[in-house]
Amino acid sequence: MKNIIIASTSTIHGGEPLDYLLDELQIFFKDTSEVLFIPYARPSGISHEEYTAKVNVAFQKIDKNVVGIHEFDNPKEAIRDAKGIFTGGGNTFVLVNQLYKNDLIDTIKTVVKNGTPYLGTSAGSNICGLTINTTNDMPIVYPPSFKTFGFVPFNINPHYLDPDPTSKHMGETRETRIKEFHKFNTQPVVGIREGSWLAVRGDKIVLKGALDARIFEYDKSPYEVKTETELSHLK
Amino acid sequence: MKNIIIASTSTIHGGEPLDYLLDELQIFFKDTSEVLFIPYARPSGISHEEYTAKVNVAFQKIDKNVVGIHEFDNPKEAIRDAKGIFTGGGNTFVLVNQLYKNDLIDTIKTVVKNGTPYLGTSAGSNICGLTINTTNDMPIVYPPSFKTFGFVPFNINPHYLDPDPTSKHMGETRETRIKEFHKFNTQPVVGIREGSWLAVRGDKIVLKGALDARIFEYDKSPYEVKTETELSHLK
Repeated sequence: MKNIIIASTSTIHGGEPLDYLLDELQIFFKDTSEVLFIPYARPSGISHEEYTAKVNVAFQKIDKNVVGIHEFDNPKEAIRDAKGIFTGGGNTFVLVNQLYKNDLIDTIKTVVKNGTPYLGTSAGSNICGLTINTTNDMPIVYPPSFKTFGFVPFNINPHYLDPDPTSKHMGETRETRIKEFHKFNTQPVVGIREGSWLAVRGDKIVLKGALDARIFEYDKSPYEVKTETELSHLK
Repeated sequence: MKNIIIASTSTIHGGEPLDYLLDELQIFFKDTSEVLFIPYARPSGISHEEYTAKVNVAFQKIDKNVVGIHEFDNPKEAIRDAKGIFTGGGNTFVLVNQLYKNDLIDTIKTVVKNGTPYLGTSAGSNICGLTINTTNDMPIVYPPSFKTFGFVPFNINPHYLDPDPTSKHMGETRETRIKEFHKFNTQPVVGIREGSWLAVRGDKIVLKGALDARIFEYDKSPYEVKTETELSHLK
């Protein structure tokens, strides 16, 4: 049975990485003392080693050890053997490119569908949706495809940001961008604000955390849903 | 001889489309009363017809007529016959996808290198660089390549936006994104603020407009350049 946390961000303003989620993660990863980390999204371009070391600091607080997938000769085997997986944030294009390069998309899909707990934050959450067509990231590399895991039957927009009515900047608001997405695509998009997450258990999808989420469905006006709302029907 | 305007935005805050550029455009398009418009970027997903009509309103102010490339049975021929070309803003991925679909990249490269005046704003400016890897847009469609015209030997970041020191949002700043770009790519990036543009005449590239631009070179600290600075050496 699928068991997934799809979080908007790893870090909320003023906090330490994963701090706001640690209580949840203690339960989520209760059956393992070791979590396999996928550092491919390389925030600010840092190396896989540096990124893994940072994440280890956070997980030590709940007595979990983190091993980076780059430490294994055979990354597919590492995925198959893992008792828990975490994909961190950074650049979604860099992440997806590396996942395709190492031919890991199908392997991760299979183990997560079979029950390996999967935590994603930011870029690591984007890839839980059908495609990365609603990422906020700059396309600094060209991946072979925008298609991703499809653990949920819609797209994710992490770090969802409301329009700033005082802005004089002429770039598009997040809402405008997602509306443009729906001129070319029909799947729903869930905008998750920083500090909230989706909890997926089997076919049940529930919004968790302190904040409302914003839902964009094709040919409908966007609407807000409260925390604890079930989104299992959305597709 | 190349004759190109690469503008950050079509519209500055509180203004009408192209207003701030009209004096310049009167000179730029002096040899033609008709401008061929490429509406493929479809801002907010509007149709090619609607977009062309809007742009026509702006160009009527300087007594130019605008025809949309979608009105022609043979878009390549339309490019070859044009005495002036304007590619407007919207979504860069949608724009590039359509240019590839209609096999227009090489045709436009050829006519512009041979002297047809080309104006780009926003997405239409992004494609003047080597690639669209530094666009700000959401990747709502998957184009066959990120490679574009390369009229200048670097990348463009239009709508360049300085970091907001008061922000509590954890998404990356524009500067962080461009630094990440340089972990995977080596060409310079020119961040053009809204209201400024690059004027290209042959091999000479000059920053124009009221605002400084921000230059990002591989393995160097970013720096500011004043208006009227020549950027012809940058590559």
